[in-house]
Amino acid sequence: MKFNLVHTDATARAGTVETDHGVIETPIFMPVGTQGTVKAVEQRELIELGAQIILGNTYHLYLRPGMEVMQAMGGLHKFMNWHRPILTDSGGYQVFSMSDLRKITQDGVTFKSHLDGSSHFFTPQKVVEIQRAIGSDIMMVLDECPPFPCDEEYARTSNTLTVKWAKLCQQAMNNSLPLYGHQQSLFAIVQGSIFKHLRADSAKALVDLNFDGYAIGGLAVGEPAEIMYELTEFTNQFLPKEKPRYLMGVGTPENLLESIERGVDMFDCVMPTRNGRNGMLFTRNGRINIRNAKWKMDDSPVDEGFDSYTNKNFSRGYIRHLFQVDEILGLQLASIHNLSFYLWLVREARKQILANNFTVWKREILEQLAAQI
Amino acid sequence: MKFNLVHTDATARAGTVETDHGVIETPIFMPVGTQGTVKAVEQRELIELGAQIILGNTYHLYLRPGMEVMQAMGGLHKFMNWHRPILTDSGGYQVFSMSDLRKITQDGVTFKSHLDGSSHFFTPQKVVEIQRAIGSDIMMVLDECPPFPCDEEYARTSNTLTVKWAKLCQQAMNNSLPLYGHQQSLFAIVQGSIFKHLRADSAKALVDLNFDGYAIGGLAVGEPAEIMYELTEFTNQFLPKEKPRYLMGVGTPENLLESIERGVDMFDCVMPTRNGRNGMLFTRNGRINIRNAKWKMDDSPVDEGFDSYTNKNFSRGYIRHLFQVDEILGLQLASIHNLSFYLWLVREARKQILANNFTVWKREILEQLAAQI
Repeated sequence: MKFNLVHTDATARAGTVETDHGVIETPIFMPVGTQGTVKAVEQRELIELGAQIILGNTYHLYLRPGMEVMQAMGGLHKFMNWHRPILTDSGGYQVFSMSDLRKITQDGVTFKSHLDGSSHFFTPQKVVEIQRAIGSDIMMVLDECPPFPCDEEYARTSNTLTVKWAKLCQQAMNNSLPLYGHQQSLFAIVQGSIFKHLRADSAKALVDLNFDGYAIGGLAVGEPAEIMYELTEFTNQFLPKEKPRYLMGVGTPENLLESIERGVDMFDCVMPTRNGRNGMLFTRNGRINIRNAKWKMDDSPVDEGFDSYTNKNFSRGYIRHLFQVDEILGLQLASIHNLSFYLWLVREARKQILANNFTVWKREILEQLAAQI
Repeated sequence: MKFNLVHTDATARAGTVETDHGVIETPIFMPVGTQGTVKAVEQRELIELGAQIILGNTYHLYLRPGMEVMQAMGGLHKFMNWHRPILTDSGGYQVFSMSDLRKITQDGVTFKSHLDGSSHFFTPQKVVEIQRAIGSDIMMVLDECPPFPCDEEYARTSNTLTVKWAKLCQQAMNNSLPLYGHQQSLFAIVQGSIFKHLRADSAKALVDLNFDGYAIGGLAVGEPAEIMYELTEFTNQFLPKEKPRYLMGVGTPENLLESIERGVDMFDCVMPTRNGRNGMLFTRNGRINIRNAKWKMDDSPVDEGFDSYTNKNFSRGYIRHLFQVDEILGLQLASIHNLSFYLWLVREARKQILANNFTVWKREILEQLAAQI
C-alpha cells in the first residue's frame, strides 16, 4: 500500500491510497458491508455511486460464513464479487461492546458469540490470521476500545494493552503471507479516551512502530462532537503526514467535514444505510423523514438535480409510499441515495481542498445542510 | 389494444399484444407488483431481465397510496416510473379471499380493509373508476371467485353475478375516458368452478359481450393440476382465437408450459418472487433450496451458463451466506434470478412455438426441470 499526499489546504488533506485492488482518492467515505454485503445495495450499484473502498467486519465474518468457507471461496473479494479495496476492522469494537459476554486478559479476549453463545478467543495473532483469510487490503489491529466515560487509570492501562497488541499484530503480519496474491497492509488504532496526554502517548508509541496507516479509535462513542473534533485535531499532530488517517465510525456529514478540515483522510459509518432504512434521507438542503405525510403527493425528487439513481428516477411521494407499505424497494432506494450523498460529499470536499477553498466551502455547505426542508 | 396471433403450433400460440406502452410478445409471464413495486426488484432490473408487462393490484393500491394520490401523481406508470404495460387485477380475488370481512350483494361487495378495518364498497363501476385512476393498460372486470370446492348451485349463481358485473364494467369503461392520454382495455374473467358446462356458459356469455381479452379465473385455488389443465383446455375452445387469453395466478414452470400448450397467452404468479424470498431458486436442472448446507462452499453459479445478473456474478455459496445472515441482498438476488428464469422460460416457449417444436421441447425441458440437483 502506498499513500501519496497530493495536496494540503491548511490542515485538510487530499491524497491517494494505492492498493493492489485500485487507487482510493482521499478524503474518502467507506460504506459498511459488515457481513459481506452493504445492506440493500448491490455491488454494481456501489460501483455506480462511486464507492472506492468498502468495509467488512472481522467479528461477523469470522462467525458467519466462518473462515473455512472464506478460504475455500478465495477470500472476501471473490466471495462477494467486489474487486475494489476492502478494509476490515479487527472485531475489537464488536467484542468490547458486549461487556457481559467477554473477558479480557493480557493475551487477548474471550467472548461468547451473540448467535449461539459459543465461546471464542481472539488474540492479536488470531485477528491477523482471520484477516489473512478474509484477504482485506487494509487490516486493523486488535485494540481495546475503552467505554465513554472511563477514568484515567482505566484508559492508561487500556492504552498499554492496545500498543502491546498492535505490536503483536504487526509481528503476526510480518510472520505470515497473504493468501490470495495481493498485498495487505495494517493500520494501528490510537486510543486514550478523552485524555490528551494519553492520546499523545498512544499515537507516539504506535508511530514508533511504523504502521501503514493510523486510525483514531474510541471516538464517536457518546462524547460531545466538540470534544471529538478537539481530540481528532490534537491526535493528528502526532501522526506522520505521509500516512493515511482514519477516524473510525464517524459520522454525520458535519462530522466528516469538520474532521476532514482537521486532517482526517478516511471514514466509515453505518449512518447513511441505517438511517436510510429508517426513512431518513440526506439532501443538500437538509434531512428528510420520507415517512412524513407531507410528501404524500410530492412528485419532485428527493434532492432536485442531485445525481443518484433514486433521485433521478423516483419521487418523494413514491418513496414515501414504499416505506408506508413496507416494501423492500424503499430500503434499496433510500440506501442508494444516502450513500450517493456521502460519496458526493467527500468527492466535493476533495475538489475544494485541491482548489484551496475547503474552509469557505465547508462553511457554506454546512449552512445549507442544516436547513429545514 | 390489438392482439395479433402470429403463429400456432397445434393449440399453442405465439402472438403480440400492442398497447400504448409497447408491444408484449406472448406467451408472456407478468411479474407481480402488488403495491406498485415488484418485491425486492428495481424497475431498471425488470427491464434488464426482460419483463414486458407487470401487474398491479387494484385492491391494495386503492387502500394505499389511495386514488387521490394516484391521480395527483399522474397514474401508476408515472408514480412508479415504469413505462411498459401494466395490467391490474380488479381486486375481486383479494376481497373474496377475506371471507369474514366482506358481504356480497347484487350491486357489489362491501369489505373491511385488512389494514384498519374501515368499510369500503366495490361495485363494477367503482372498480373501473379505480383502474382509470391507476391508468393500467389492461383492466380486469370485478368478478366473484368461488372458493374451491364449491357446489354447483353456488357456482351457477356466482356465474350469473360475474357475467352481470362484467357487463356493468364494460358499460362503465365505455362511459368514461382514460385520464392519462393512453388507451386502456378491459378483460373479462371466465368462472364456473370445476363444472364444465358452467365454464362453457360463462365463456359464451362473456364472449358475446366482446371484451378485449379473456381471463380464466377460479383455477389454481387448490384443485389438482390435472383438473386445471383439463378445464383450461376445455374453456379455451369457447374463447375467440383473435383475443388474448390469460390464466390468472398460475403457476409453476410446469403449469405454465402445460397451459401454453393448451392455448394460454398470459400468466401471472407470485411464485418466482415469493419463493425466491424464501430461498427457493429455479434452475434449468431443478429447484434449489439455497439455504441448504451443501451449498456452503459451492463457488459455482446457481445455474451454470444461465443469463441472469445473479447467476453471472454470484455463487451459490455467497447467496446461501446472504440468506443465513438475513441480508436483503439475498432477497434481491433470488428474486432477480427467479424472474429471469420465468421470463426466459416463456421467451423460449415462444421460440419453440414459432419453430413448430413446442411439444417436443416441452417434454424435454419438463424432464430437465424435474431433476433433483
